[in-house]
Amino acid sequence: MNDKQLLMIPGPTPIPQRVLHALANPAVGHRTPGFSAIIREVTDKVKKIYRTESDLLTLTSSGSGAMEAAVSNFINPGDKVLVLEYGNFAERWIKIAKTYGADVQVIAGQWGRQADPQALAQALTADTAKEIKAVYATHNETSTGVTHDIKALREACGDHPAIFVVDAISGMAVSPLEVDAWKLDVVVSGSQKAFMLPPGLAFISVSPKAWALQKACQTPSFYFSLKAAKKNLDEKNTTPYTPAASLITGLQESLLMMEEEGLENIQARHARYREMVRAAVKALGLTPLAADTAASAAVTAVMKPGDIDVKQITKIMRDKYNVVIAAGQGKMEKEIFRIGHLGYITEADILATIACLEMTLKGLGWDCPLGKGVAAVQEIMLKG
Amino acid sequence: MNDKQLLMIPGPTPIPQRVLHALANPAVGHRTPGFSAIIREVTDKVKKIYRTESDLLTLTSSGSGAMEAAVSNFINPGDKVLVLEYGNFAERWIKIAKTYGADVQVIAGQWGRQADPQALAQALTADTAKEIKAVYATHNETSTGVTHDIKALREACGDHPAIFVVDAISGMAVSPLEVDAWKLDVVVSGSQKAFMLPPGLAFISVSPKAWALQKACQTPSFYFSLKAAKKNLDEKNTTPYTPAASLITGLQESLLMMEEEGLENIQARHARYREMVRAAVKALGLTPLAADTAASAAVTAVMKPGDIDVKQITKIMRDKYNVVIAAGQGKMEKEIFRIGHLGYITEADILATIACLEMTLKGLGWDCPLGKGVAAVQEIMLKG
Repeated sequence: MNDKQLLMIPGPTPIPQRVLHALANPAVGHRTPGFSAIIREVTDKVKKIYRTESDLLTLTSSGSGAMEAAVSNFINPGDKVLVLEYGNFAERWIKIAKTYGADVQVIAGQWGRQADPQALAQALTADTAKEIKAVYATHNETSTGVTHDIKALREACGDHPAIFVVDAISGMAVSPLEVDAWKLDVVVSGSQKAFMLPPGLAFISVSPKAWALQKACQTPSFYFSLKAAKKNLDEKNTTPYTPAASLITGLQESLLMMEEEGLENIQARHARYREMVRAAVKALGLTPLAADTAASAAVTAVMKPGDIDVKQITKIMRDKYNVVIAAGQGKMEKEIFRIGHLGYITEADILATIACLEMTLKGLGWDCPLGKGVAAVQEIMLKG
Repeated sequence: MNDKQLLMIPGPTPIPQRVLHALANPAVGHRTPGFSAIIREVTDKVKKIYRTESDLLTLTSSGSGAMEAAVSNFINPGDKVLVLEYGNFAERWIKIAKTYGADVQVIAGQWGRQADPQALAQALTADTAKEIKAVYATHNETSTGVTHDIKALREACGDHPAIFVVDAISGMAVSPLEVDAWKLDVVVSGSQKAFMLPPGLAFISVSPKAWALQKACQTPSFYFSLKAAKKNLDEKNTTPYTPAASLITGLQESLLMMEEEGLENIQARHARYREMVRAAVKALGLTPLAADTAASAAVTAVMKPGDIDVKQITKIMRDKYNVVIAAGQGKMEKEIFRIGHLGYITEADILATIACLEMTLKGLGWDCPLGKGVAAVQEIMLKG
């Protein structure tokens, strides 16, 4: 039974049987009216999840490809950009922006904390010449288990002309994100998170304000050209290059499931998972990295107990109990372990994960009170 | 029964049931030892199909993404490159090279003809300062149904220091291509062709000579950075960004099938399909665009008979007979129709396609001798 692994990482998430079946549908011609109708349908539905009326483009790549598009389509070499750096994926914004020759100003904060809207407001107020072209933020920082307050961060920008760009790869649909109401200009997400699909598709929304900046951009862009993607979508409901057709067929099914559950219910479910996992690890005497008010509904990062090797925790969980959780990333690689609870996850999955975590920690010599974490989850479940 | 379409386009090809099952396997952790072993396994097997010992990198994108990588990782703005332009996909090389600011010299030929090795030799001999950094060629030109003589073209380059880059997206495994023996420096292919998978994965080989040029390249590259891909593969059998894991699981199965059939048998099978389709259309009084000596084993392009609208041919084939074939592309969009015969295709599929083509042409008012095309295929089949 080693084959049956419980996948509790912050993406890829487990895939529903209905979606797996859709992925196994026969190949289709990607330049047929039937497939154009599917592209139109899934685009409109993803826009509803994004809460946007702006353009929504689908790229055949993982989320990092769409992050690159969110830089290369808007930024000329030497342009000033501002990055809010509070984790490993925020660092990716810095890396991409530097790759494209941007003049990168970083507001660096403590990993595990939320980005500070006041620091952002100050940095933009100091930019009296209005030279900053874009602010790059992260919705849910997968590496620290922190969901940033995107609404407050966007409000802190006021009327500054910079576009506001959000990596919402692991947070989209998991936690509220109002693309239009909050005036978010470019928002990136990926298929392997709350969309409950394998990796390979990325989504990116582009506001009219962002298109205006794109028109002034001279940076080379071919495969990730958003202008080409928009033209093909608007004129022919198609893509400039061959799309990952089987994933789009799977997306059609997973979007049906998301519609059936409803966006508010999906978010409430994930908020409940957050409550359960945090209650459990606290009951075991462990400390979540993020404060309650900053905690992610997609993933919980937990400080390692004592001097236990984090790699041993993930290894025993995987090899002995068939539960896959994640170690830390970047500079916190050895400080934390992370339990993903996004996408196609049930409360039973969380019960099993916590029970196996208890045994793993006990097995590693840490005085873990068996059953106490599970009981904390049960209490929440019995409250209904 | 509209659901059961016969896909006879030059990719995506139909997908074997075994591969569809593999695509429907549950999600896996992409940063686990088990998945690294799969990446190692499929990489080694794709290298055997490429006939190369050089680096072979897998990208999560369609083939066009890997074509971009074959420019952006090697070419600085202002660098001279040479493109052999004999079709729509060769034009894509020009477009990408210009996007990246290359000084593009084009050897343009007639669509439907093979590229001329002598013209290439002359152009490189004329480059006495050895300024040309790369030659971009196309193995199988999907838009015209021509397979170019890559061996002769590479030989025409002699000892010129330019790297030799090949788009082998639709030709890889279909027709001979000896990456190492023919000294091909960068060769691109895609999952949705002879690999019998959905689109979403691309492969690219990189020779030591190409790596030397890459080291001198300053063009920004992030998602398609081949250096990052090589580093992650060499050090950890992994990818820099989340790979399309389900497609890689499918690839594992399709490579097993390709191993079982054997590369020589795969190529012999496709050569036979070429012979069948060409014999059939000639028996109907139609004219293939490519000469016998230049004809592709992946796709046959056929001149439209009389003044029949090509779009009507593909529409009736699809809507009335559930057989999907392709119209022309680019400047030959309205001049030809194209029958794909690559990947998971049988002789029965070809019989059915030709029979439906006969009825379609007759239905459009062309005096088509019913059964004559089918008989031409049958004759080849009975010869064994």
